[in-house]
Amino acid sequence: MADQEARENPTPAAPPAAARPKRVSHRGRTAGAKVSSNQQEGKVEEFEPFMLLPRGPPPLKEFLDIWDVDVLKRPQEINKQGHHTHLYSSDFLIVRRTLEFQIKITFDRPYKPAEDKFAVEFVIGPSPQYSKGTYIPVFPSEERQSVWRGRIVETSDNVVTMGITTSPECIVGKYMIYIGVVTPYGIRRTRRDPSTDIYILFNPWSPADPVFLDDEEEREECVMNELGIIYHGAYDDVSERAWNYGQFEFGVLDACLFIMDKADMPLSNRGDVIKVTRVASAMLNSRDDDGVLVGNWSGDYTYGVPPTSWTGSVEILLDYAGSRGTPVCYAQCWVYAAVFNTFLRCLGIPGRVVTNFFSAHDNDGNLKMDIILDENGKLDRNRTKDSIWNYHCWNECFMARSDLPPGFGGWQVVDATPQETSDGMFRCGPASVAAVKHGQICYPFDAPFVFAEVNSDVIFYRRQKDGTLEVVKVNPTHVGRMVLTKAVLHDGRRDITDQYKFPEGSPEERRVLEKAEEFGCQREKASLPQSDVEVEIPTLDVRVGDNFDVTLQFKNHSDQRRTADVYVTGTVVYYTGVPSAEVVFKTPKSVKYDVDYMHKLVEQANIHFITTGKIKETGQIITAMKVITIHNPKLIVKVTGSPRVSEEMYVSVEFTNPFKFNLENVHLRMEGPGIMPFKRKQYSLIAPGTSITWTETFSPRRAGSTKLIASLDCAALRQVYGETELTIQQ
Amino acid sequence: MADQEARENPTPAAPPAAARPKRVSHRGRTAGAKVSSNQQEGKVEEFEPFMLLPRGPPPLKEFLDIWDVDVLKRPQEINKQGHHTHLYSSDFLIVRRTLEFQIKITFDRPYKPAEDKFAVEFVIGPSPQYSKGTYIPVFPSEERQSVWRGRIVETSDNVVTMGITTSPECIVGKYMIYIGVVTPYGIRRTRRDPSTDIYILFNPWSPADPVFLDDEEEREECVMNELGIIYHGAYDDVSERAWNYGQFEFGVLDACLFIMDKADMPLSNRGDVIKVTRVASAMLNSRDDDGVLVGNWSGDYTYGVPPTSWTGSVEILLDYAGSRGTPVCYAQCWVYAAVFNTFLRCLGIPGRVVTNFFSAHDNDGNLKMDIILDENGKLDRNRTKDSIWNYHCWNECFMARSDLPPGFGGWQVVDATPQETSDGMFRCGPASVAAVKHGQICYPFDAPFVFAEVNSDVIFYRRQKDGTLEVVKVNPTHVGRMVLTKAVLHDGRRDITDQYKFPEGSPEERRVLEKAEEFGCQREKASLPQSDVEVEIPTLDVRVGDNFDVTLQFKNHSDQRRTADVYVTGTVVYYTGVPSAEVVFKTPKSVKYDVDYMHKLVEQANIHFITTGKIKETGQIITAMKVITIHNPKLIVKVTGSPRVSEEMYVSVEFTNPFKFNLENVHLRMEGPGIMPFKRKQYSLIAPGTSITWTETFSPRRAGSTKLIASLDCAALRQVYGETELTIQQ
Repeated sequence: MADQEARENPTPAAPPAAARPKRVSHRGRTAGAKVSSNQQEGKVEEFEPFMLLPRGPPPLKEFLDIWDVDVLKRPQEINKQGHHTHLYSSDFLIVRRTLEFQIKITFDRPYKPAEDKFAVEFVIGPSPQYSKGTYIPVFPSEERQSVWRGRIVETSDNVVTMGITTSPECIVGKYMIYIGVVTPYGIRRTRRDPSTDIYILFNPWSPADPVFLDDEEEREECVMNELGIIYHGAYDDVSERAWNYGQFEFGVLDACLFIMDKADMPLSNRGDVIKVTRVASAMLNSRDDDGVLVGNWSGDYTYGVPPTSWTGSVEILLDYAGSRGTPVCYAQCWVYAAVFNTFLRCLGIPGRVVTNFFSAHDNDGNLKMDIILDENGKLDRNRTKDSIWNYHCWNECFMARSDLPPGFGGWQVVDATPQETSDGMFRCGPASVAAVKHGQICYPFDAPFVFAEVNSDVIFYRRQKDGTLEVVKVNPTHVGRMVLTKAVLHDGRRDITDQYKFPEGSPEERRVLEKAEEFGCQREKASLPQSDVEVEIPTLDVRVGDNFDVTLQFKNHSDQRRTADVYVTGTVVYYTGVPSAEVVFKTPKSVKYDVDYMHKLVEQANIHFITTGKIKETGQIITAMKVITIHNPKLIVKVTGSPRVSEEMYVSVEFTNPFKFNLENVHLRMEGPGIMPFKRKQYSLIAPGTSITWTETFSPRRAGSTKLIASLDCAALRQVYGETELTIQQ
Repeated sequence: MADQEARENPTPAAPPAAARPKRVSHRGRTAGAKVSSNQQEGKVEEFEPFMLLPRGPPPLKEFLDIWDVDVLKRPQEINKQGHHTHLYSSDFLIVRRTLEFQIKITFDRPYKPAEDKFAVEFVIGPSPQYSKGTYIPVFPSEERQSVWRGRIVETSDNVVTMGITTSPECIVGKYMIYIGVVTPYGIRRTRRDPSTDIYILFNPWSPADPVFLDDEEEREECVMNELGIIYHGAYDDVSERAWNYGQFEFGVLDACLFIMDKADMPLSNRGDVIKVTRVASAMLNSRDDDGVLVGNWSGDYTYGVPPTSWTGSVEILLDYAGSRGTPVCYAQCWVYAAVFNTFLRCLGIPGRVVTNFFSAHDNDGNLKMDIILDENGKLDRNRTKDSIWNYHCWNECFMARSDLPPGFGGWQVVDATPQETSDGMFRCGPASVAAVKHGQICYPFDAPFVFAEVNSDVIFYRRQKDGTLEVVKVNPTHVGRMVLTKAVLHDGRRDITDQYKFPEGSPEERRVLEKAEEFGCQREKASLPQSDVEVEIPTLDVRVGDNFDVTLQFKNHSDQRRTADVYVTGTVVYYTGVPSAEVVFKTPKSVKYDVDYMHKLVEQANIHFITTGKIKETGQIITAMKVITIHNPKLIVKVTGSPRVSEEMYVSVEFTNPFKFNLENVHLRMEGPGIMPFKRKQYSLIAPGTSITWTETFSPRRAGSTKLIASLDCAALRQVYGETELTIQQ
């Protein structure tokens, strides 16, 4: 019943090994060890005397003795109800904040409330201290209560059932339990028993908790759903892929706590969801701090797993925690967002992955993306440096924002993808979505950056003969074209663009942009004459291997004849908008698969067409942009057998090489939440036209509706997915 | 006259050396090289054709040719006036933003405005681009102007004098100049001539510049003064030391630009003072990013320079830049603040070093510092973990805050001292001082942290027999007792506490604290009965070697007899409040130098007395705290010779060992802005009672009032300073 601690003296400075030591002892800097580990345990004394004792062993036998402590963690017991933690695969009791849970204490004799004084002590980390929230005694009597409430629920013979209610701001993590009994000589306590350890999580079901989300369906989706859909492709040709978040899988909760340990995050901050999510946004990427995932957009993934190849978060998190914090290779934005989502849901923070189509990036939070044309209106690739990502995935998490004025709680953007040119910004958020929508970007954290991602203008400049640039067109609607997330409790899309922006062209939108300018966002103000000719590239549905025609549609709004000199540039691009090999056309033409793009496609097969031209009669510049996604073949996933818990079932994954060349070193991955851990298979060669079938057996662990998700990956063909839905009976 | 760039193709991914590469190629991630170096230069073509040329060399001779470009940088020339850059020791032209400067161009024949088209081109960094502000052409004709204005000041024969006015948001750094002439075949430009490079700095004299400070005396102090005073010690016994900021010394400006290069800060952000100061707050310390200074509070400085030993910033900055970014050992808070101040003033940002006495630290931005007493009211050192720094130094810099609502411009706190337990917060600020004063801590950056440093309550808890804690006293006035900075243009102190806080106990103060609580700051709310007995420890003036008495003063506000059981604990502490060896007294007594503290003093000789006790009659707890600074001996610095520019003069530094033991490995340092670069001297032994005299010669480089500053340092005695003022005649 005492705030015990490791009584370390400040250690003397060890002589550093290298001539210029980077890290030095902190003697003189901080009092005692830093408390930022949930894994380290403090020494808690079994007997803590009040004062000098008379010689000889103290006569303890006359006082209350404890025979057993039971945290009631078996499936049918009280604590498994109401806490919404029944899906966690864990040997420990897992509960949520502010909701009572019960423990059973068996004494050596009946408990006498008037005489016996005891407390249930909760201890977290190496240096428990009451004032830091790392040591909490819970008392059974009404008169004497600490920050967590205690009460006797039931007494029967020697057994006392005690109800314990944690505070809404208590630390989220793994606690040890002791029972301390007061004797006249000191406090006597139970020995450490790891089997009674309990995890305390955030509680979105409790109005007292800052993560409270008052919608049962949303909670079911954003906290309890292990399966997700991540959107990619282009805004007018959206692709989707399934993802196994796996937040309840064995070891994932420990991995999430380990991430905060690895980030050296003080335990005393871990009850604060704002700080937890901000730290996680930094720790999910490996820049600076040996975080979870190494970003790689190079196309060369020889020494790791290609970002397109992952099917879920579990393997990544277990690999990271299992290696004690070696960053996992490799990630791109949706991998960061998906693993971040697992982290959020696992700790009980409502979370979802969102996709922003045409996301302005790396432009330092100003509102301009520059595209440079030459004198004739042709795209100048060498001078165009800004990139607009075809799509970008980030996370939203739900919380009250006690650090901001009212009105900015609710969904918050957090983003773990490292932003290369935003100085040192390898973390992003939480930024209030409401603040972004209303242009109130003066509030932390990183709101101007998120605002620019959805609101930047695309500025077309014509480069003059003398080298200066003239603004010829401003497209205010291209960037942030659509923001999507998975629908609640079914597999459809949910368009949440209106949560980020007022309708294009509305008076509210104009006011918001003016507000953002007041806060230092720079916008292009050139007033340009409305062009009387418009050009557009219609959407195309292209599968890999197809030949296709690129057509241009012109609209002449004048009543006169107009002649245009038009260039079309088609470029194979990464999803980041960065060009790879170029495929050049002059004026509309047919695109041939084997001539034009077969060997040039990069992992996410997108061709970015920009058409630019000049109207002869008026000198006006016309432009249009379109991303054409080349659709890859799919995997066929089939399940056979009786879909019941613990019954053996079979799954087969089929694929046919549709190309005229060999596919080499082909990796397949598959997993299914609650039914199959991730599995891998490699084929060294799949010849043209050849089919392969990979069969595995599995035994569903629990009932309910779920999916099996598979991916195929090789250097010549990436982002090939397949999935099947199935419902397991009890 | 063109935005040239290094036309690099995205380089293919090099196979990583290690099996788990941390850094990978960014092909696919970003278009082109990252532009974050002021030192790299882009290739600028001497001839840039407009189109395909006819065979044979183009007949250029008929067009304007340039014989000479002169940037008028000699001392008496026009550009040295008005820009307030005459003190910089540099071979280059240095000007400030928005104020016109002139350059002289000599052509091969008289310039004909109607026919000849030319531009002065300013280029910064490896990939110049007009839309990023890294390529700026300046035109001589009224009709054609870019973001920087140009005009013909004078034409005489072949010579044209051109006036150039930079924009108020232009990038701060070192630019290259080219002159481009338009010919029908293309643009012909001058060769790279490093002698015409110019530095452009922030301009606090210009109302258009966000760093505008409308007070000539303040500008003279906070931009132009190379000499500073840094306050330390205790709030009721303030010590001071001189510091040579040396912002005009040769190489310092380049070192400051190098720091931003090393931070990988995009050039396009370097016109934004908010971003520049935020990046610098991270880069001045070596945590995470190989920044300038390694922090060390251990007392063991074997492998570097003890923090107390530095006398100025120049040596540190030149060492860092000279080693291409190897962190310099060692710093504590005032070293970080002093070097940061050099950085600010050097770039033209008004800056000052401030000292906060009793600064709450490492408490994660909550407003409680916990002190734990035992049942009897005696301090429990093992359970008291929070530390209150005797003093803490940070910086203020002056700027408009366009990113915030009106009212938060002006002085801003930036702090480069790494905060150990604030997760990942190895940068701090800029935080608006006005926002801190008004409790508006919802605005970036890091305002809650600064607010806590000056506003935390000290909470005394009594630890009960059963281990719980009871609040027995709250001291709301101890922390943030006084904030000092050097006075403007003279050597006195300036108390700026009222810029951070409303008067203690005022209604405004109460409102501010309530505001801060709304934004999530936690405060202790226990309402405690006013104790009718007060205790105080009076201030003492103690020199090292003195014996002294600690007395307690009691005030009994009741009309009854009161008896107290009182403990006094005297602890030798680091300035961070962290205890070293303990010197324990029970009840007031005499402190003997050789018995009690001689061998226990740490570098900044402070003894922290806490007295706590219990009134027998009422059970109330009384407490008082006092830091006694043991004053060290001083160095005597004497100057002889005629104080004129370039005349040889002599300086002697004298010291007598006042102790009864040898001082070993004694290091002395000395420097004087404008008159003497830093010098060192080592004595292997100074015997008890022995005096040493170190004599050096020097020749003042420029006229004016200045100082010679010296320090002495050895393991047994630190923080010994001396200085002398002198005025040099022309």
